[in-house]
Amino acid sequence: MSDPRFTPITGTEMPRYAGAATLMRLPQVLPGAPDWEDVQIGLFGVPWDGGTTNRPGARQGPRQVRDASTMVRNVNRASGINPFALCRCADIGDTPVNPADLADSMARIERFADTVCASGILPLFVGGDHLSTLPVMRAVSRRIGPLGMVHIDAHTDTWDSYFGGQKYTHGTPFRRAIEEGILDPKRTVQIGIRGALYADGDDGWGREQGIRVIDFDEYRALGLEQVLREAHAVVGSAPTYISFDIDALDPAYAPGTGTPEIGGMTTHEAQLLVRGLDGINCVGADVVEVSPPFDPGGNTALAAATLLFEILCVAASGVAKTEA
Amino acid sequence: MSDPRFTPITGTEMPRYAGAATLMRLPQVLPGAPDWEDVQIGLFGVPWDGGTTNRPGARQGPRQVRDASTMVRNVNRASGINPFALCRCADIGDTPVNPADLADSMARIERFADTVCASGILPLFVGGDHLSTLPVMRAVSRRIGPLGMVHIDAHTDTWDSYFGGQKYTHGTPFRRAIEEGILDPKRTVQIGIRGALYADGDDGWGREQGIRVIDFDEYRALGLEQVLREAHAVVGSAPTYISFDIDALDPAYAPGTGTPEIGGMTTHEAQLLVRGLDGINCVGADVVEVSPPFDPGGNTALAAATLLFEILCVAASGVAKTEA
Amino acid sequence: MSDPRFTPITGTEMPRYAGAATLMRLPQVLPGAPDWEDVQIGLFGVPWDGGTTNRPGARQGPRQVRDASTMVRNVNRASGINPFALCRCADIGDTPVNPADLADSMARIERFADTVCASGILPLFVGGDHLSTLPVMRAVSRRIGPLGMVHIDAHTDTWDSYFGGQKYTHGTPFRRAIEEGILDPKRTVQIGIRGALYADGDDGWGREQGIRVIDFDEYRALGLEQVLREAHAVVGSAPTYISFDIDALDPAYAPGTGTPEIGGMTTHEAQLLVRGLDGINCVGADVVEVSPPFDPGGNTALAAATLLFEILCVAASGVAKTEA
Amino acid sequence: MSDPRFTPITGTEMPRYAGAATLMRLPQVLPGAPDWEDVQIGLFGVPWDGGTTNRPGARQGPRQVRDASTMVRNVNRASGINPFALCRCADIGDTPVNPADLADSMARIERFADTVCASGILPLFVGGDHLSTLPVMRAVSRRIGPLGMVHIDAHTDTWDSYFGGQKYTHGTPFRRAIEEGILDPKRTVQIGIRGALYADGDDGWGREQGIRVIDFDEYRALGLEQVLREAHAVVGSAPTYISFDIDALDPAYAPGTGTPEIGGMTTHEAQLLVRGLDGINCVGADVVEVSPPFDPGGNTALAAATLLFEILCVAASGVAKTEA
Amino acid sequence: MSDPRFTPITGTEMPRYAGAATLMRLPQVLPGAPDWEDVQIGLFGVPWDGGTTNRPGARQGPRQVRDASTMVRNVNRASGINPFALCRCADIGDTPVNPADLADSMARIERFADTVCASGILPLFVGGDHLSTLPVMRAVSRRIGPLGMVHIDAHTDTWDSYFGGQKYTHGTPFRRAIEEGILDPKRTVQIGIRGALYADGDDGWGREQGIRVIDFDEYRALGLEQVLREAHAVVGSAPTYISFDIDALDPAYAPGTGTPEIGGMTTHEAQLLVRGLDGINCVGADVVEVSPPFDPGGNTALAAATLLFEILCVAASGVAKTEA
Amino acid sequence: MSDPRFTPITGTEMPRYAGAATLMRLPQVLPGAPDWEDVQIGLFGVPWDGGTTNRPGARQGPRQVRDASTMVRNVNRASGINPFALCRCADIGDTPVNPADLADSMARIERFADTVCASGILPLFVGGDHLSTLPVMRAVSRRIGPLGMVHIDAHTDTWDSYFGGQKYTHGTPFRRAIEEGILDPKRTVQIGIRGALYADGDDGWGREQGIRVIDFDEYRALGLEQVLREAHAVVGSAPTYISFDIDALDPAYAPGTGTPEIGGMTTHEAQLLVRGLDGINCVGADVVEVSPPFDPGGNTALAAATLLFEILCVAASGVAKTEA
Repeated sequence: MSDPRFTPITGTEMPRYAGAATLMRLPQVLPGAPDWEDVQIGLFGVPWDGGTTNRPGARQGPRQVRDASTMVRNVNRASGINPFALCRCADIGDTPVNPADLADSMARIERFADTVCASGILPLFVGGDHLSTLPVMRAVSRRIGPLGMVHIDAHTDTWDSYFGGQKYTHGTPFRRAIEEGILDPKRTVQIGIRGALYADGDDGWGREQGIRVIDFDEYRALGLEQVLREAHAVVGSAPTYISFDIDALDPAYAPGTGTPEIGGMTTHEAQLLVRGLDGINCVGADVVEVSPPFDPGGNTALAAATLLFEILCVAASGVAKTEA
Repeated sequence: MSDPRFTPITGTEMPRYAGAATLMRLPQVLPGAPDWEDVQIGLFGVPWDGGTTNRPGARQGPRQVRDASTMVRNVNRASGINPFALCRCADIGDTPVNPADLADSMARIERFADTVCASGILPLFVGGDHLSTLPVMRAVSRRIGPLGMVHIDAHTDTWDSYFGGQKYTHGTPFRRAIEEGILDPKRTVQIGIRGALYADGDDGWGREQGIRVIDFDEYRALGLEQVLREAHAVVGSAPTYISFDIDALDPAYAPGTGTPEIGGMTTHEAQLLVRGLDGINCVGADVVEVSPPFDPGGNTALAAATLLFEILCVAASGVAKTEA
Repeated sequence: MSDPRFTPITGTEMPRYAGAATLMRLPQVLPGAPDWEDVQIGLFGVPWDGGTTNRPGARQGPRQVRDASTMVRNVNRASGINPFALCRCADIGDTPVNPADLADSMARIERFADTVCASGILPLFVGGDHLSTLPVMRAVSRRIGPLGMVHIDAHTDTWDSYFGGQKYTHGTPFRRAIEEGILDPKRTVQIGIRGALYADGDDGWGREQGIRVIDFDEYRALGLEQVLREAHAVVGSAPTYISFDIDALDPAYAPGTGTPEIGGMTTHEAQLLVRGLDGINCVGADVVEVSPPFDPGGNTALAAATLLFEILCVAASGVAKTEA
Repeated sequence: MSDPRFTPITGTEMPRYAGAATLMRLPQVLPGAPDWEDVQIGLFGVPWDGGTTNRPGARQGPRQVRDASTMVRNVNRASGINPFALCRCADIGDTPVNPADLADSMARIERFADTVCASGILPLFVGGDHLSTLPVMRAVSRRIGPLGMVHIDAHTDTWDSYFGGQKYTHGTPFRRAIEEGILDPKRTVQIGIRGALYADGDDGWGREQGIRVIDFDEYRALGLEQVLREAHAVVGSAPTYISFDIDALDPAYAPGTGTPEIGGMTTHEAQLLVRGLDGINCVGADVVEVSPPFDPGGNTALAAATLLFEILCVAASGVAKTEA
Repeated sequence: MSDPRFTPITGTEMPRYAGAATLMRLPQVLPGAPDWEDVQIGLFGVPWDGGTTNRPGARQGPRQVRDASTMVRNVNRASGINPFALCRCADIGDTPVNPADLADSMARIERFADTVCASGILPLFVGGDHLSTLPVMRAVSRRIGPLGMVHIDAHTDTWDSYFGGQKYTHGTPFRRAIEEGILDPKRTVQIGIRGALYADGDDGWGREQGIRVIDFDEYRALGLEQVLREAHAVVGSAPTYISFDIDALDPAYAPGTGTPEIGGMTTHEAQLLVRGLDGINCVGADVVEVSPPFDPGGNTALAAATLLFEILCVAASGVAKTEA
Repeated sequence: MSDPRFTPITGTEMPRYAGAATLMRLPQVLPGAPDWEDVQIGLFGVPWDGGTTNRPGARQGPRQVRDASTMVRNVNRASGINPFALCRCADIGDTPVNPADLADSMARIERFADTVCASGILPLFVGGDHLSTLPVMRAVSRRIGPLGMVHIDAHTDTWDSYFGGQKYTHGTPFRRAIEEGILDPKRTVQIGIRGALYADGDDGWGREQGIRVIDFDEYRALGLEQVLREAHAVVGSAPTYISFDIDALDPAYAPGTGTPEIGGMTTHEAQLLVRGLDGINCVGADVVEVSPPFDPGGNTALAAATLLFEILCVAASGVAKTEA
């Protein structure tokens, strides 16, 4: 039986386009609200794109994904999982940000994530650009040490710097995370990488640290099963973060992003891939880089919302097992 | 001092694009919630377009206007009115509807409006198609008798029937309201009417009942001041409803509507017109016919949200006077 | 030799974007026109979305598909079929509807379909929402008994009711058809079903009646040939209806629909699937749920028009065989 | 009483978005059809943009205006004119064209227009680029000598040549018409001209020929009444052509055109201007340069369709007087 | 005679949509190029929106305005000014920026502007958000002392700070400029201000410093002539900067901006206003806040490009006088 | 080491959205410029759609692809090729055209291509409609005799004529080229052909000449490796032209084209196909039929730009080998 305090409004009673939009039509439980301590999985937004080196707009991602997520129903047809029956989930709002100051924004995001983690709530957020992942990872890692990661993306996001020494951008979060010791490269797998390189060897640093990079061509060559087998092997049973950059999808499926690359994943591939992560010890996750101004038909937000639901199923299934 | 339970989130703290969208960034206070009885003006949505005879989509109006309304600030530059300082306002959610049954939807909307009026809350809603106004008017009128109306629109909405006997559509609400005795035609003024007629004399019924129809050409000829003088004279000091159909605006300003007519009002004209209604005994109001699927750039929703704010200023100023 | 009264205008004489748009650039032969009794396949529109529980707009589908269908040529490259050489086809207009009354609209659609069937014309329509199929099926079944069906869709459309007892919506037509005895569930196959469920077991009723449900994952697992083999086996040689909901396609291919679900079919898959239905005893067919307001680039309408052509080839090939 | 053979379908019976779209929802009467000789005003399209020097797309204008024109009703609210009661009007189809050969297209258009004029039908067309006007004018003038013209446009279209000697483009039709003796410059008035010049004196040729050029600034300075007085004085009671280039409207009102210029007319101004031409001896007219690919919201086509209706009222009123 | 090194490509030779797009189709003369020292007016872009507190995208403004500016011709019809005949103008490229670091970006912009001013080139730029103006003003002012300003905008941009102490945003540049002593508030006029306030008195600081604020209602009440008279009086003959925020225009005319406010200026009003600044001692100017992702039809960029041309005419006329 | 005169600006220094857009962010070296004779591969545009029989707009392709190409980086991840390190590449501008005269445009394009070939520069262009290929082929062939071709397209473009004798359109270039003896049909392979035919046998002429036509269904059936094996076998080691019509891609991937056909290639398939052409003796190439007005999200231009980069890698690798 679902707890009514943490249950989405159903579309058979109130049409899906009706009402103010929250993530998955869940009640909003902001930090400090009476029900706060009962939340197990906290869905939130990071309305920020200060780390974007290219086309902006991801700051508007959380609101658009809230809207699109009202199209998603409760039970995963393929896996049978109803995350809202397994766990107490809530929309816990957006992190504070300062759109005109990168360092200040990162500090605000980290403080919010700290509040979440301090209450034992699993953070599951919608970006925001990919730099948003870094402060959230810091908060998660602070309590449980270096994390493993399943990272699905067109880009490795392990560049060193841009524009002559700019160390913090959406192209660098995982290099920083490894340097900070909060991400374990040997327990990190990157899937779906593609697109031209700025220069030869651009790609080498991460592999040297021990990251298993499965680029898009290799992903297609290996096939889903083998990729999943490797992914599970790489991250093992230790705490693992799942990060899904929407530009892993082909722009035909997800035009609304800042740095599109042709020749990417279909949404069906992405669904099977995420679904196949079930069993991983997921301690935090995100879907990032949704940029509504470049998403005229809304397909990107719908894809992000549905993949968020798939990740939520994986996370909820893990939380439920831990509880049991 | 604003009551923090009824105060919008300010954009100087949380960026306007951040957070789940509510009307004017007000807290949501759904019927029955602890703070319900303290609400003075209840902003809500009617997510319904079952009465539409032409292009649909107004059912999505409330959510899109919620989004756009986060762009509006608190203090009316021209009049100095801060409605949130004058009154306790809240987003009270959306009415229930049944998109596949017109009569059932009207009953649900009326019941919701009854709940609102029963608590002494002034209803201010975002449509929805113009038929939505009829059940809300019924609830308002039930307690205080026949209403006057300032009706700003491209169409009179006093047709008798469509499609061979269909009496309830968005083209007929005010004929029905007059027949039901809840709208007093002699205290009704319609401003901005334009567009071709189906047939000669199409327009006659309302005038015969005593409605003062100021079509767009006459509106321009008379000038704002004279129009306002007449409007105030027609409705007097008795209870009056304000209904703003967004198609009163020219489609260059508001393309997102079901029955656009070229040659209409600018938003500035609409602002001055609504602002000039200050002093009217406003007991209910709406902005209707915003159809997001036809509003690619979002201008229509922004116009609707800003005009909703202008109407709110008029309503709040009235409520505050009554209180005093 | 094509009969000039029933032959599309060719794009090598009149550019495809020129002229008023009719379905497949066929002449219009409205009911009662001199050539009416000579029509063998009647292409028409159902300009109605009164059964929609979600995003509207399918009422505008017929006109947009008319426009897009002028892009289609006459001869199927793969099968070599020229339906216009095999049969006398015409655009027979749109059914009457009453956008503000669901029951009245269904009655009007059924009467129009009755007129079509009474003249021995095979009905092939463009929706409109999926509830449109029910009254057309009634007319077809009235003369020849319970129908088999090949149903390609993201959703089973066999829910019982919405919004507290609403029995007729675009989510319920096939439950009603089975209850009315006009659709034989044991001769029904549903292909491509996907998307989350409202609740566990949502999906069970149809299967219990004997419908063969091939959801999208099973469809991909079985492969086209096996799916076609099963489809032919299920429907056999008795009269069969083909219903194609455009949301069977992935939203990357068909964004213009009311209830998009990520992870669907490509247009090429859909073409091969429909083409593989050749040989079925097709007595009626449709392409439904095209919602132009959500189709900014027009891809959905083009897909619908081209799939309509593929279905027409199947239907014409059947009609020609019967004639022979 | 309207003749049912020449009467638009009314939106109170069949919703305006339903049915195949014809101009003003009139029956189609193609050249040679049984009712051809009874047509008094023939509305047609010129689906061609071969004369465009800038952004293309006007070839698609006729079809999009057909669609938008189904939004227009029958009776002019301001003037009371119902053109369909005054005259027998029909949609007489599109002219043949050859999109890859300018000279051949012009010949085809002229032949079509000749057929129209030979039957005593007043030609009223939707372009197409402005070069389309030249062959139609030739056909009209052939029978009645040099024409006067009321030309509403952002550009004078009297340049001499482009691209090193290209004499026929949409920037040159009226220079050619004057040179050919079919347009009388002394009976020509151009209203609304604006936008920067290629070079000093660009504008001089037409004025030297005697054209009365009222540029946009002068139009605003003089006021509508004075402009109309001059326009009537210039063209007098002799046969006059009315040509409305949609780029006379500001791009806020009509973005869908090839050569937009900011700072133009509102639709209301255009309506009053056209309406004020009543009484002119109109022998042919057009609305040109509607380019649907640049008209995402459809406002331009709606403006064109409504202005076409206004021009039709002027033309029908003249035809009716002549008949009487 | 125009100098061929500084003359736009004409549209009568090369179609306007052809060729790589530069500002006004001028040759590119980047800093240090052989012709650099001969440039008199340098048109450039500031591809940056790091100061944006609301919807982003202005970083893409320069490229989109380059594209739209190829639609503008050479000679101002109203004033007869051909700026390219009066002055040596060039597209001098974009300033360097660092999208992830506000302070670094401001430093880079200032250095670029310093290079421009050091060569005696008048800077005329396309933003970029309004904070871009501050570093450019610093460079201009460095050589000639405090500037006067004609500032056309919906917002005063004199807020103190956002988000708890953020001093540099696009809402604060002119407060900072006054504090830094580079802008003389007593020689500053702000025209077209409108939109709601965050709080009472929001507006007061600027007026207290001596800025002449003509809000939109007052602008309409005074009329153009009186506004211009005041503007000239306020700035006098001393060096003056012209800053045009595109959101001064109504969103019907310029939807592509980050903080739209309904009820604004038409493009024609803006043209007359800018044109009327002729005679001012213009030492630098800009058009800012064009956000292409919110400009689906491109109207905003076209308006910006055309207003840039109007400002260029004012600036060139001044430069030419000084030279003479 | 790359030659700085022929090296793209990198996105890690100047953001990709910044600066005037040139093809691949290469310097512009127009014919006759000092560096002209050092160019090895000349990237240019043909801003023309005069041969289009259907929806226009390809004339705007070059500029939009310039913009999108700034998103592409330098090194091909899959092949390791950095074309800019292998060859001296430049954006050499657009060809002259006359949009109102087909024959004149073809002559101008041919003269430009002659200039290119005369300097030993390999031509690589962005169309423009497919007729653009004919004049470029003429120039290439003039020096080296009949060409082989790898032609990737939805259409064979070997029709004979349109509209009653129109021999030159975008549907006929390769028939003309074969007739002119500049294209060797026996060394021509066409890949990806699909879509309905106008009439039976439409397709026969090319096959009769000896073209190897691999339609889309056969392409999928054979698999990439076999298709590539055949393609290499057909063209051999003699000079070969590569022509990529963007409508080879499915409209989900490339909506922005004049004659879309559903059921086409993904961008990933296209990338692998082009990449697999490495080793061919490429003497000229193009990507054509990109029509920006139908490309609202810009995906088509991005696909075209990225495929242009893939082709450039093939061409550069060949040029480098020849040099060595």
